[in-house]
Amino acid sequence: MATLIIGIAAGALTTIAFLPQLIRAIKTKHTKDLSLITFSLFGLGVALWLVYGILLKQLPIILANGFTLIFIVLIAAVKIKHG
Amino acid sequence: MATLIIGIAAGALTTIAFLPQLIRAIKTKHTKDLSLITFSLFGLGVALWLVYGILLKQLPIILANGFTLIFIVLIAAVKIKHG
Repeated sequence: MATLIIGIAAGALTTIAFLPQLIRAIKTKHTKDLSLITFSLFGLGVALWLVYGILLKQLPIILANGFTLIFIVLIAAVKIKHG
Repeated sequence: MATLIIGIAAGALTTIAFLPQLIRAIKTKHTKDLSLITFSLFGLGVALWLVYGILLKQLPIILANGFTLIFIVLIAAVKIKHG
């Protein structure tokens, strides 16, 4: 039970964590210090976690990685736009 | 088997992804565009994933999140130093 709660808290944190970075990038229009390689590799990895969750039919893995992927793709898009 | 390979690839990607961001931050000494809230929340979440892996005695979860946590703590430290 404690393990489940820790897993849910971990998934929630590593997902919502990227929202402040997305908001900051959109607001400031400055993304020079962000590594596009980092967000590309991380996005690819999260997409694979999503596939992994779909194969295992594990909704928590699917939801956490689905939302994270959306945030990461948007951060990468803002980075590509502003350089 | 395919699921296992996808999981290993996913874990490897979401771990090594942060190395280019760390190298960039150290090299340029510019971290203004990075969100400290993002790296703090993400670091906390990854630390919980690490605890989760330890509780489940799952070495892949422990290793992936252990290395990711090191990278995230170092990125946050460079960010705190350079602002």
